[in-house]
Amino acid sequence: MIDCTDMNSLRERIAVARGEKKADIVLKNAQLVNVFSGEIYPADVALHKEHVAGIGDYQGEEEIDLNGRYIAPGFIDSHLHIESTMLTPGELARAVVPHGTTTVICDPHEIANVLGAKGVRYLLDASKNIPLDCYFTVPSCVPASDLETPGARLSTELVASLLKNERVLKLGEMMNYPGVLSGKKDVIDKIEAGCGVGIEGHAPGLRGKDLIAYIAAGMTSDHETVSLEEAREKLKAGMQILVREGSSAKNLEAILPLITPANSRFFCFCTDDIYPDDLAAGHMNVIIRKAVSLNLDPAVAVQMATINSARYYGLMGYGAVAPGYFADINVVSNLEDFNVEMVFKKGKLVSQRKRLEFEVKSRANKEIRETVKVKAFEPDALVIEARSDYARTIELVAGQILTKSIVAPVKAQKGQVVSDPGSDVLKLAAVERHRASGRIGLGMVKGFGLKKGALATSVAHDSHNIICVGVDDEDIVAAVRRVVQLGGGMVAVRGGLVLAELPLPIAGIISDETLKDILEKLKKLSKACDDLGCRVEHAFGILSFLSLPVIPELRLTDKGLVDVEKSKIVDLFE
Amino acid sequence: MIDCTDMNSLRERIAVARGEKKADIVLKNAQLVNVFSGEIYPADVALHKEHVAGIGDYQGEEEIDLNGRYIAPGFIDSHLHIESTMLTPGELARAVVPHGTTTVICDPHEIANVLGAKGVRYLLDASKNIPLDCYFTVPSCVPASDLETPGARLSTELVASLLKNERVLKLGEMMNYPGVLSGKKDVIDKIEAGCGVGIEGHAPGLRGKDLIAYIAAGMTSDHETVSLEEAREKLKAGMQILVREGSSAKNLEAILPLITPANSRFFCFCTDDIYPDDLAAGHMNVIIRKAVSLNLDPAVAVQMATINSARYYGLMGYGAVAPGYFADINVVSNLEDFNVEMVFKKGKLVSQRKRLEFEVKSRANKEIRETVKVKAFEPDALVIEARSDYARTIELVAGQILTKSIVAPVKAQKGQVVSDPGSDVLKLAAVERHRASGRIGLGMVKGFGLKKGALATSVAHDSHNIICVGVDDEDIVAAVRRVVQLGGGMVAVRGGLVLAELPLPIAGIISDETLKDILEKLKKLSKACDDLGCRVEHAFGILSFLSLPVIPELRLTDKGLVDVEKSKIVDLFE
Repeated sequence: MIDCTDMNSLRERIAVARGEKKADIVLKNAQLVNVFSGEIYPADVALHKEHVAGIGDYQGEEEIDLNGRYIAPGFIDSHLHIESTMLTPGELARAVVPHGTTTVICDPHEIANVLGAKGVRYLLDASKNIPLDCYFTVPSCVPASDLETPGARLSTELVASLLKNERVLKLGEMMNYPGVLSGKKDVIDKIEAGCGVGIEGHAPGLRGKDLIAYIAAGMTSDHETVSLEEAREKLKAGMQILVREGSSAKNLEAILPLITPANSRFFCFCTDDIYPDDLAAGHMNVIIRKAVSLNLDPAVAVQMATINSARYYGLMGYGAVAPGYFADINVVSNLEDFNVEMVFKKGKLVSQRKRLEFEVKSRANKEIRETVKVKAFEPDALVIEARSDYARTIELVAGQILTKSIVAPVKAQKGQVVSDPGSDVLKLAAVERHRASGRIGLGMVKGFGLKKGALATSVAHDSHNIICVGVDDEDIVAAVRRVVQLGGGMVAVRGGLVLAELPLPIAGIISDETLKDILEKLKKLSKACDDLGCRVEHAFGILSFLSLPVIPELRLTDKGLVDVEKSKIVDLFE
Repeated sequence: MIDCTDMNSLRERIAVARGEKKADIVLKNAQLVNVFSGEIYPADVALHKEHVAGIGDYQGEEEIDLNGRYIAPGFIDSHLHIESTMLTPGELARAVVPHGTTTVICDPHEIANVLGAKGVRYLLDASKNIPLDCYFTVPSCVPASDLETPGARLSTELVASLLKNERVLKLGEMMNYPGVLSGKKDVIDKIEAGCGVGIEGHAPGLRGKDLIAYIAAGMTSDHETVSLEEAREKLKAGMQILVREGSSAKNLEAILPLITPANSRFFCFCTDDIYPDDLAAGHMNVIIRKAVSLNLDPAVAVQMATINSARYYGLMGYGAVAPGYFADINVVSNLEDFNVEMVFKKGKLVSQRKRLEFEVKSRANKEIRETVKVKAFEPDALVIEARSDYARTIELVAGQILTKSIVAPVKAQKGQVVSDPGSDVLKLAAVERHRASGRIGLGMVKGFGLKKGALATSVAHDSHNIICVGVDDEDIVAAVRRVVQLGGGMVAVRGGLVLAELPLPIAGIISDETLKDILEKLKKLSKACDDLGCRVEHAFGILSFLSLPVIPELRLTDKGLVDVEKSKIVDLFE
């Protein structure tokens, strides 16, 4: 628990609450959304320093007439991979605070795969002194797989050490549910490390006795629930359901019919993974708006974005506009579109009509910024000897991160397999980038539709090596080289020239620019993809998942082609 | 947090949950009261060692057919002064576990007034290894007043030290709300000590801005709420309301109309003070039964006695029958009378049809048992010079612990005031008993109706000196002497002979006998009171509050007569 009252100001706060002393700020003529009683009624809210001192009728040094606007607690994202936003914590604050998010629970799984404990500590450090409270869970599954080369490992000892940080709340999502069910030693060891504080779950599609066993082993939440029946089963078994509305996974509509006033406390909202373009439109406010449009009681929707998450994570002083709570307060125009007009963070006005009232600085030392280490290579490193006319090929599935494993005819020149834009079977390379080992995995992919050039990115789940798809080997080399020069990033290349790029110098996965600048660069990248003939929406996003060796069916890592079901490296030609 | 899974058995538990290994015990054909979904439905419950492994269809080494009986989680008393039961923790377990209580949150305020931190540590120690989990809050207000002589003080340093104990959950009820509101230094210091873990409230009748200020200062619960409007106000301000159904204070009926499925999570049940005779009839089960009889949904009533308290106090693994939770389980015949037929504590059957399946031992060393130290005195120490024909007199109010301050004519003999059974104005003595100071406070009381003899008790709130009412000085001396000989207790005397007594050798306020034996002795004491002409029900209970200098209007401590409103010692004759 972190909320420890500043004793110097406690007496003052008491005096303000009693009406003996003027509040710093009084929000007058507000309609308070009370997350305890579920009622909405007129009230003044009196702020003193970082806290709410009183609700009722108060006078302040400064008085702001809200003219009947609504007051809700600052919103909490109950599960977020900050890396997916590509923003530093400071820039994330600039992006989400104006939409009313004042607290996020971050699982730094991605940066931990690159930098281990150092990466987690960087995010802990970079999220200090910003108007967005960042709490953390410690990634429990780094690396997620032995089938690729990670930048770092989080041992049980490191996990235990990170759990002691005052802003670390729980052990992060236990993705290795097969390991839990089979009682794998390192998994059981990590459960032991986390059992005193609680362990986040990650149980996609887990049902029946396997689900029961997973919960019996100590996992208390799930953010991977996609269907009503699954949600019902998980609720009954005691899980806190973090209803996910991220950029690709949207589960609210499916789960909503289960939520009643009697059980709503066991549900929170989260985004899990949200990308820059979606963030531009909003954050938790968008989810609340959608829930209300689907006929959820606005007070219940607000609870799911505030008090429910605060209570689930044991965050004292968060999640309500009430005496003694931190003054994290949103002023919203109405309870339909939840348009956030003003945001107070710990008593300070930090955003007004989306105009920011604060500045942040990005901080990352050399160790965090210089993580891309690739052994120099030439196009001959990409040669695939044509041992057959057919090759095991990754086939994209439209709109999903799932892939199919197919056997496709391949084009050969001089006994070597080459990309064939005609049949859309292109070369894919996964380049190890953490320790300059020179290891490159090679494969073929169908579905991108590129007619020329290459696309490379150092965002490549979960180990974040560099993955690149290209029509010719020279462009693949050029694209990877540019990613290396940038210290990480996304690059589109044609004829050896960079068409567009987004530098991601922090751990090779996070930008140091503003959301606005990132969006502009992403737009240029998108246009470059179009120019290269790409048929896939969010091509870089799809590309970044082609290396993730835990989602069916076929993947490519630096170690080679991975048959996910068999969980082993397989040959390109059988 | 205490629940840390035993890793040696975790793999087994997972296997049991998956149905790969037989459970230790399976409760078959049960109707499960699910505290998450609020549903009640048929299920088997599989136990493995201390935990619930699974809910569903299971096989066990032992299978118990419940024939459609109901399964509810073990009940939790969310706020209890164990000393009021007069039982050691072990005997309390024997008394309440058969009624389904498996966890209690104890505030050891009384023993702390006698023995300070030593007393708290005794209860912590004596509550180990019994089939009732005793968690604690650290008393925040010891002593409660400077107007009497306590046995000990709990300094801020001692409070901070006790807060580190793994079974200590929060800082205990902050009774000194005037001290909070006025910003008194030692009160603010204690709030500082407790603010990291949370602070229990005690806000009888506190309303409006004083209530707001009290909450703003950090108090998060209240168990003193007696009216609907008061409850509504406290709920809206964010308090967890511990609905009290104790021996003297019964608040459920008044508060119940406020409780809805949408807000019920903010309510728990507690007893606060419950006396031996009421315990004989039951404990939390009686409260649940009453709530259901008042038309509360049975599932909501069960939540208020289980998961709500567990979540409020952050007790992981408590409050639900669900995978991974401690197997604290009640089998109840139906959801109307909540008659508890079987009780499992951490997987062990500990009570069946009220027949106990466990034994406990009482443990208390010399330091805890020999606390009554009184300087020898003779009847002349009780002389009151008759300086007037009228004296300030404490008048009892029927059925309440409030008293009136009246001026009554007094009887004098040889210039000394004596008890006058004719007008029922009797002598009252408060004898300091912690440090043999010889200090005796003297006063007069109207309302007991004693015709002869004397009643003395070392249960005398809050400092637990000895208080005695009597018709003649010799019997007062004899009664006090007998209390001293017993090392504490309750005594009825006539003509120098002991008519009945209840020894309370542990800190002078707790028995070392069983509930049954205590009840027999209390019955004899009650008969003795009748024989002496006493007109007051629960005469020893009423007597024990006559020394409490914080409840209006007039009290007697070893320091003298206390005008509670003025909070000062006053003269018997003005």
